[in-house]
Formats: sequence, C-alpha cells, structure tokens
Amino acid sequence: MKKFEEKTIHTNHIFNGKMISLQVDEVSLPDGKTSKRELVKHPGAVAVIAITDEGKMVMVEQYRKPLERSLVEIPAGKLEPGEQPHTTAVRELEEETGYTAKRLERVTSFATSPGFADEVIHLYIAHQLSVVEEKLAGDDDEFVELLEVTLDEAERMQQEERIWDAKTAYAVLFARANGLLK
Amino acid sequence: MKKFEEKTIHTNHIFNGKMISLQVDEVSLPDGKTSKRELVKHPGAVAVIAITDEGKMVMVEQYRKPLERSLVEIPAGKLEPGEQPHTTAVRELEEETGYTAKRLERVTSFATSPGFADEVIHLYIAHQLSVVEEKLAGDDDEFVELLEVTLDEAERMQQEERIWDAKTAYAVLFARANGLLK
Repeated sequence: MKKFEEKTIHTNHIFNGKMISLQVDEVSLPDGKTSKRELVKHPGAVAVIAITDEGKMVMVEQYRKPLERSLVEIPAGKLEPGEQPHTTAVRELEEETGYTAKRLERVTSFATSPGFADEVIHLYIAHQLSVVEEKLAGDDDEFVELLEVTLDEAERMQQEERIWDAKTAYAVLFARANGLLK
Repeated sequence: MKKFEEKTIHTNHIFNGKMISLQVDEVSLPDGKTSKRELVKHPGAVAVIAITDEGKMVMVEQYRKPLERSLVEIPAGKLEPGEQPHTTAVRELEEETGYTAKRLERVTSFATSPGFADEVIHLYIAHQLSVVEEKLAGDDDEFVELLEVTLDEAERMQQEERIWDAKTAYAVLFARANGLLK
C-alpha cells in the first residue's frame, strides 16, 4: 500500500494545539518532481452506534464551531494518548450519554479526510445498554443534549440536515441496512 | 441550529495554505466561560459514486500523504472558488477517471470532521457513463490509478483496509443497500 509513494524531503512544523497539529511536508513525487502537502495530525477518535432496548439510536446534539451550527451526531470522542479505541468507546458512551453497554463491538474504521488529515474514526456498536448510576463528567467545555431516535426520525433529521456528518450518515445507513432500529 | 452557540471573541489566524487554512478562535461558552477552538478551513469537496454499465463501481487508487499509504477511493476533488458542486463533480469524474455521465444526481452531503474542520463533501451518483475522447488533464502533482470493482471486490478491499475512508465506506454501503452493483 505504498503505490505512488511521496517521500518526505523536509517537514515544516507550523502549529501544535490541544486537539490538532499542522505541518507542511515537502515531498518527492513518483515522477521525481517535488510538491508540498499540508497535513493535519489528529489523535484519532471513536464513535458509537448505541441501540436502546426500544430499538432507538442514541444521539447527542452539540455546537460545532468549525461549521458555526449545532449537529445531531452519534456519541464520539478523541483517543487519549496511548488509549485503546475500545476503552475510549466505553468512556465516551458513558460521558456523553450516561449509558454503559453489555456488548460493544467494532464495526469498522475509516479515515475521515485523507486528503489533508490523518484522523481515523473507529466505529463501534453497543447493545444491551443500561443507565450508569454515577455518570462520568465530560470535558468542562462540552455542552451536549441527549436524544433517542427511531429510524424514521433519524432519516428525517438527515433530510433537514440536522444530522449532517459522515460518521452519523454512515451509522444511520448501517442501521437501516442491518434492520437495527424500530 | 444554534443550540449551545459558541460566540467568537477573537480569531487568531495561524496559517493560510494552498488547500487549507488554520485559525484558533477564542469563544464564549453557554455557561459564560471561555475556551479555544482549533479550526481548519477547507473549500469543500465532491465525491462521485460512478457505476459502469457492467454494474461495477469506479475507484481510484492514490497516495495519501497524511496517512503515509495509498488508498482506494471513489473519485473526488476540491471545489474551486465559487464553483457549484455539480460542476466540480462533472470535472473531477472526467479528470480522475476519463468518464462522463449522462445522469449525475446528488445523493447527500456531509461534514467529514465537524470537531475540527469545516470540510463538507457533496456526494453524487453517476449513471450511463461513457469514455471521453480527450481526457481533461488533472493536477500535475496527482498520480492516480483507475479500478472498476464489483460489490464483492469492494467489500473485500474494505476487509483488507485498502478501502479505508469515510466517503468510500459510505458509498459501498449505499451501493449494497440500494442494489446498485453486480
């Protein structure tokens, strides 16, 4: 999986933030010419398709500053340094929704923006949910509202673009294709 | 869709590149506290589910520097300034694959990484493909190889993680759910 490899000649580190960092790499192309690549580094994330016993999907609504609007999304969160995605999935599900799952399995993983970022989302599915007694506190700059939606409601939210991100679009289509929701 | 709105107090422009720019916004949170948001600006992109008359999906393999590997993806490309997504879809399909489509319809749109970027991908579906006589030249730093795959082949490539990005994962699931491929 190194076809058309672009070898790094030089890396220029631009920014190192709390969530992402940015670098510009000068690369040599397969034809020997050089070019520049703008690369965002991200720790990776998990997202969880969580299905309640009533056959509804658990969603969270939150403000997304890059888009200057709120979105309804499946629960998700960044990996902490050295953390296994399964551990992150357990933690984020509990922090964002107050649910814990008896069964939590990986569905797939995908890169979200391979043209400019290395972010990979590991997608899990959670079954047999129960409410935790003492909910973990989330980040103190995160404000989220919980929703539980049927398949019809999820698809209407997509029509209205209240659901409007790739991982949640995938999750709703996955739930439809596999008959997971009422 | 302004629930939990985070108002911008100050914007710090960090980087302005050829594909993306980066800024850090100081914001006021719903509880009156302040926080910082790292925001990548991207012009947006299109991607095309292109189905041949033989019922195969057209894919391109290319090196993705952020991930340091090549990926098999559906054809895609960035919007030029002021360009309508439909126009970009026609152009990118032709540049990357040498095909033109008699029918090209929008399927959906989604934000790829709403936590740190404003990139939105507009997903199209192309039917009734024909080979163009004189293919448009692509960017001179793009090296891509064309593939045409059945549903089984696409799903095997997902197992092997040769297909490993969100838009293509969505496209393969969409094709399966709608019986588009042989």
